[in-house]
Amino acid sequence: MRIINKTQILAAFDAERITALLKTGFIAYSAYQVQMPPVQHFLFNAAEGDCCIKSAWLEGDDQFVVKVSSGFYRNSEQGLPSNQGLMMAFSALTGEPQALLLDEGWLTALRTALAGRIAAELCAPQHIDAIGIVGSGMQALLQLQQLKAVTHCREVWVWGRTPQRLTAYRQDAEAAGFRVHITRDAAELAAHCNLIVTTTPSHTPILQAENIRPGTHITAVGADAVGKQELATALVAKADAILVDARKQCSEYGEIAQAYQQNLLTTVPIVEFGEMLASGMKMRKTDQQITLADLTGLAIQDVQIVKGILAGL
Amino acid sequence: MRIINKTQILAAFDAERITALLKTGFIAYSAYQVQMPPVQHFLFNAAEGDCCIKSAWLEGDDQFVVKVSSGFYRNSEQGLPSNQGLMMAFSALTGEPQALLLDEGWLTALRTALAGRIAAELCAPQHIDAIGIVGSGMQALLQLQQLKAVTHCREVWVWGRTPQRLTAYRQDAEAAGFRVHITRDAAELAAHCNLIVTTTPSHTPILQAENIRPGTHITAVGADAVGKQELATALVAKADAILVDARKQCSEYGEIAQAYQQNLLTTVPIVEFGEMLASGMKMRKTDQQITLADLTGLAIQDVQIVKGILAGL
Repeated sequence: MRIINKTQILAAFDAERITALLKTGFIAYSAYQVQMPPVQHFLFNAAEGDCCIKSAWLEGDDQFVVKVSSGFYRNSEQGLPSNQGLMMAFSALTGEPQALLLDEGWLTALRTALAGRIAAELCAPQHIDAIGIVGSGMQALLQLQQLKAVTHCREVWVWGRTPQRLTAYRQDAEAAGFRVHITRDAAELAAHCNLIVTTTPSHTPILQAENIRPGTHITAVGADAVGKQELATALVAKADAILVDARKQCSEYGEIAQAYQQNLLTTVPIVEFGEMLASGMKMRKTDQQITLADLTGLAIQDVQIVKGILAGL
Repeated sequence: MRIINKTQILAAFDAERITALLKTGFIAYSAYQVQMPPVQHFLFNAAEGDCCIKSAWLEGDDQFVVKVSSGFYRNSEQGLPSNQGLMMAFSALTGEPQALLLDEGWLTALRTALAGRIAAELCAPQHIDAIGIVGSGMQALLQLQQLKAVTHCREVWVWGRTPQRLTAYRQDAEAAGFRVHITRDAAELAAHCNLIVTTTPSHTPILQAENIRPGTHITAVGADAVGKQELATALVAKADAILVDARKQCSEYGEIAQAYQQNLLTTVPIVEFGEMLASGMKMRKTDQQITLADLTGLAIQDVQIVKGILAGL
């Protein structure tokens, strides 16, 4: 069994190759060509931790992938990252373990950021005035970096609650070539931006319906469990078109779950990434539409990024 | 992350320590102190393979365990073992990966054999005339070896379909100190033996109700999926007491599933290992009872054997 550490993984990361693989994966998922058993969950209440185990196989592939990823929210007290995890590849021909990727959660972060890039490709307006990033953590930075491949816009507004983290984000984003405006007022961000990515684990909506300009696209990354929500339900209900990674997951515990369960989305097209990509068309039909992409994360993305990393070693 | 290979694992294996841990694990399971999410399954039809992913955490423990185990039934054509797999331990305090045990399926085989030993402790008659082993594979040998700790009987009858494998089994069992009788007639085996262990993946019953002597205990290890059955339904229905690792699993896809679903077990006590062990009593009440133990395998056993191996390194 080949053991691959984080340094090797990051050196083998090729955004173009992996974006192409992710698109193939989304298409296969929506075409029912992926075996993806229900996620296993653990709750470690005393340690304020949780863990999920995801696995998938794209039927016909030579390998399948198992991922163990966890979040322990008091780890920083010990100087440890909150997110921990690893991925493993096994032969789908003999069952043998092939590779252990000690990615410390990076592959999940990267495949999520690349899904955000694909969402922007499918939904973003033609002219982007400024990019809005809600949140100032690692995913907030990765999303911004990956958007460079799909837009020439280098103007970014960043919303966060903690001044120190906003300052740190500013430095990183400037290093990535952006002009950076920081704010603690989400309405101010929305007034300037027509491509917005939300990346927080918030349980209280941060963006309101009245904040959003016509023609804006929002990619919502944070909500991946029951109770999490970054956008007001009225904002979700205002969308003219909604892109989802998986209709089932998003309607149960994604950003759109509340609006969906309140029957506010009965007239809005809700299309899966895989369906849209297979059609070869764009989600956005006019410059004035408000579009929304809801990402909850699929194990097929793990399969595809592992494939891309192994090919790059 | 510590990487432990098969040689190191087998060197650290201590049957006594791990048997004690397994008993604790069964008790915790039956007392609802174990988080054990539903098993993930894959089917690789073209390669005639399957895989299951099991995980569990005994609440309060410092670690949890994830197991990936597979069976690929054409592997022998390439000189590879059919069973492949590994186990991993993670911190339940920080989520960090702690140990990777490249056991190639051995830990599953060993914890299953030790569960057979515990079943014999709880159910076997006081005087054992001869041990009957149905099947001639690896599990058939491990079960016999582990029974040495609970009985002085060294007389064994072995049933199998393939003469070469029976001959090989005879050599291994003689090396382990047994007088060995081989047979291709299961009724002959049952006529001589009052402690029987069945270890085949058969879908057709091998032992019939009329074969079994009063006072016999049978441990059925093979049936762990819908359709597998080693004992005639009438034989299961004839049992005076039934021990199960998990009531839910056994009634759905264990050896007792057919009889259970046909409502033939409504008057028979069906007791979990953990309940029996917690009571401190034996399952068997008289010398004339026919008792049956049904093993389908629990992820808590994986947790406990990993704990035992790590303590022995």
